[in-house]
Amino acid sequence: MTSVEHNKGGHVVTMRDVAKVAGVSVATVSHVINDKPGARIGEDARARVHEAVAELGYRPNALAKTLSQGTSRFIGLVADAIATTPFAGQIIHGAQDEAWKNGYVLLVANTDGNKAAEDEAIAMMLEHQVHGILYSSWYHREITVPAMLHQTDTVLVDCFAAGGGLPAVVPDEEQGGRTATEELLAAGHRRIAFINTTTPSPAQSGRLAGYRAALEAAGIDYDESLVFPASPEQEGGYAATSSIIGSGVTGVFCHNDRVAMGLYDGLRERGLRIPEDMAVMGFDNQDVIAAHLRPPLSTVALPHYELGAAGVRILLGLDPSSDTLPTRIACPAIPRHSI
Amino acid sequence: MTSVEHNKGGHVVTMRDVAKVAGVSVATVSHVINDKPGARIGEDARARVHEAVAELGYRPNALAKTLSQGTSRFIGLVADAIATTPFAGQIIHGAQDEAWKNGYVLLVANTDGNKAAEDEAIAMMLEHQVHGILYSSWYHREITVPAMLHQTDTVLVDCFAAGGGLPAVVPDEEQGGRTATEELLAAGHRRIAFINTTTPSPAQSGRLAGYRAALEAAGIDYDESLVFPASPEQEGGYAATSSIIGSGVTGVFCHNDRVAMGLYDGLRERGLRIPEDMAVMGFDNQDVIAAHLRPPLSTVALPHYELGAAGVRILLGLDPSSDTLPTRIACPAIPRHSI
Repeated sequence: MTSVEHNKGGHVVTMRDVAKVAGVSVATVSHVINDKPGARIGEDARARVHEAVAELGYRPNALAKTLSQGTSRFIGLVADAIATTPFAGQIIHGAQDEAWKNGYVLLVANTDGNKAAEDEAIAMMLEHQVHGILYSSWYHREITVPAMLHQTDTVLVDCFAAGGGLPAVVPDEEQGGRTATEELLAAGHRRIAFINTTTPSPAQSGRLAGYRAALEAAGIDYDESLVFPASPEQEGGYAATSSIIGSGVTGVFCHNDRVAMGLYDGLRERGLRIPEDMAVMGFDNQDVIAAHLRPPLSTVALPHYELGAAGVRILLGLDPSSDTLPTRIACPAIPRHSI
Repeated sequence: MTSVEHNKGGHVVTMRDVAKVAGVSVATVSHVINDKPGARIGEDARARVHEAVAELGYRPNALAKTLSQGTSRFIGLVADAIATTPFAGQIIHGAQDEAWKNGYVLLVANTDGNKAAEDEAIAMMLEHQVHGILYSSWYHREITVPAMLHQTDTVLVDCFAAGGGLPAVVPDEEQGGRTATEELLAAGHRRIAFINTTTPSPAQSGRLAGYRAALEAAGIDYDESLVFPASPEQEGGYAATSSIIGSGVTGVFCHNDRVAMGLYDGLRERGLRIPEDMAVMGFDNQDVIAAHLRPPLSTVALPHYELGAAGVRILLGLDPSSDTLPTRIACPAIPRHSI
């Protein structure tokens, strides 16, 4: 056993660990180790850094360290849409925080859903001997697992495999739909519409199941004619306005915040006030939109940060997981002023 | 000289290169190299992969390769807000595409603007012997360069250093402001307001300079009373509505798309149509918003993808750069239906 392996928790020693033991900043450790000329560092601090380096068995070259130990400090994260939604960013953020906490570094690759880019990303990660890979989607869906992923440990994030076979972590769509509907019920609404997406997905079926469960628990009969199909964007919510008004409901649960934003436009054009004339509930808690509509939108948050963090914990064996049933993460209510 | 160094362009050989020479997919190369049992690969393809490996001098262990060559295939990217805006995502996307094209891999770290997280990220990158670091901000601003960045080659992306000293790549705010104003002028507007941010920044001064330059070129006197300060969000645009209407303008250039979204709400509440009663121009081309307002918003795009790509090219010495003047990237007009 080398001194490295004595490190608490079995982690690889990093500059951060040295900084903690020496009681100095990471920047100071870096200056001392790299013997940066001109850096004004007291002899005392310098000595403490050298002592901590010796005590912890720190080696500044992470790559040499990886090779000599035969294990890598990398975790790969394959994401399909970093560039077009903040959702992927929040998954990355959660995964990074959890990885760092455990002494690992994230290798992130964006694929835009392109098969060739995806294979390249996975190949690159295998070449760097990653500890494992998080394979993530920016929206919750069933995927076909790329064959190359079977060459390392893999956790699916915000997606799951047809037929199971790999651990997965996904948002709890049904609980989210129930929570959204319960917010409307709690405000006294009894006749509640649901604008659902036309795209078959776990969100489509799960949020509908949650809507039905909440109504049932409140003793309200499910009325299929109050579920309106719409494209899951502003345009879909706007187009649904007449049907919603014609249905005689007093509250609407929208498939997502973009749909709610379009419905806002439609209701306003007809002179209806939110929430006085119509209560509106969203889903997603999408940045840039939800908090900034007029009035600010009550919604349910998709737990992207938590999905990324849980994915890392499962990969590192810190959280339990199953190869047959995805781990479900709760979607909390975010009350604002539209109900 | 080893066979590795014969590779075209002097790049390190990757699975992708092997796949290209062998005329097979990256997945096939990976299966052959890792001798994956059960993979159905023809003898012919298998032989071609082995030939390509020998010809190119490919070594499957990227870390060993890096150590033996003494140069790293990593480029670090420090970002401050991956999780809260799609802007950082687009910078990452552009940087990754350009890095991969040149045989490099991006190490991405999110710091949330937190100094300790930033130092840890840079330390981690130095430990992995990165070729250099892109230090990026999600909005264009002047920064104080973290001292640790001087230990490697650094390019600033969407930010610049007080007093220069490091190459930087930023959006051309003045050209963007000029382009936005020119779009309104081209539609026949002569009395044009500018809702500017209250936050001092290159965007505040640059877009104003562009607005003035466009008016001047059109022979229109600059009227300071037509520049309205507002917080750079929906709430700011909404609050400016009365002043805009009272000013007698027929067109408005908004500091960003969120301001335009708030102004839309304010104009609609007063029964005004866009663009018939008031033409509205945005800035940013922000995903989720710009294309989905009613009517879809004409705007100017912030070139985040191109900022990331240019940053990598400068770091690799493929594009020229200066330590005193940032490289400016053009902001193109995105015409839709609000003018």
